[in-house]
Amino acid sequence: MKHHHIAYVVLSAGLMAPAALADTASEIAARSATFEAAFNSGDAAGVAAHYTEDAVILAPDTDRIDGREAIAGLWQAFIDAGVVDLDLVTTEIEAMGETANEIGAYTLKAPDGNGGMVEAAGKYIVIWRRGADDQWYLDWDIWNSNP
Amino acid sequence: MKHHHIAYVVLSAGLMAPAALADTASEIAARSATFEAAFNSGDAAGVAAHYTEDAVILAPDTDRIDGREAIAGLWQAFIDAGVVDLDLVTTEIEAMGETANEIGAYTLKAPDGNGGMVEAAGKYIVIWRRGADDQWYLDWDIWNSNP
Repeated sequence: MKHHHIAYVVLSAGLMAPAALADTASEIAARSATFEAAFNSGDAAGVAAHYTEDAVILAPDTDRIDGREAIAGLWQAFIDAGVVDLDLVTTEIEAMGETANEIGAYTLKAPDGNGGMVEAAGKYIVIWRRGADDQWYLDWDIWNSNP
Repeated sequence: MKHHHIAYVVLSAGLMAPAALADTASEIAARSATFEAAFNSGDAAGVAAHYTEDAVILAPDTDRIDGREAIAGLWQAFIDAGVVDLDLVTTEIEAMGETANEIGAYTLKAPDGNGGMVEAAGKYIVIWRRGADDQWYLDWDIWNSNP
């Protein structure tokens, strides 16, 4: 697993105590690290388990995807395509209590079609939701590519 | 101005009353309508005025854009490129009190390079923030294309 870089800015929201905001940020950092680890070990179901049951993914050049089963299929397609070394970097976290909004940046490597690998980079917004088990799950996930 | 279609789902959040959630949804619908109207009349500054001063846009194949002035520049570039008939359709609104999360879909028309126009469609997530003037502003805005 790659080192998970965190350079987050915690924004205040309502009456939340600063300690609670920092807790949310570190909890979500831990979840992002296991998300990365699942993807980088080729475990699409493990990635999908980080999403709520009725999560939504808005992926580029792809129709809207609803639900954990379809989400596992999307991540399996990336794994099957040879995508590796996914790295997620949180840049902002806004904690809202039972939800949290994140801006982040990603890099990954994908086959270049000539036997080599090319690095791709982009940015994302994730709306996280705290589950009944007190764990954080991706609820809405959208990204696009850098130039 | 095109008719602004609204088919939103209001999700409960914390202790907000249902009436407050519906108010947020209708206030944001009104803001989206004036956003569309500004764009479709070629008024990039008018579009940018719908964003917070330090808003973030994550646009496809574009570096992250910060702040209302740079945001006006992005929308001016779309106007200069001949993009017209922007239509925004809210599909989900989640009201969090002073912020609100929206999933939506857009269509627009752009020059096809042969003297005609081609329709493009995509999807977006916007994090809205209520300003000191009690008005809603786009704070984070990200989108990508459909297939």
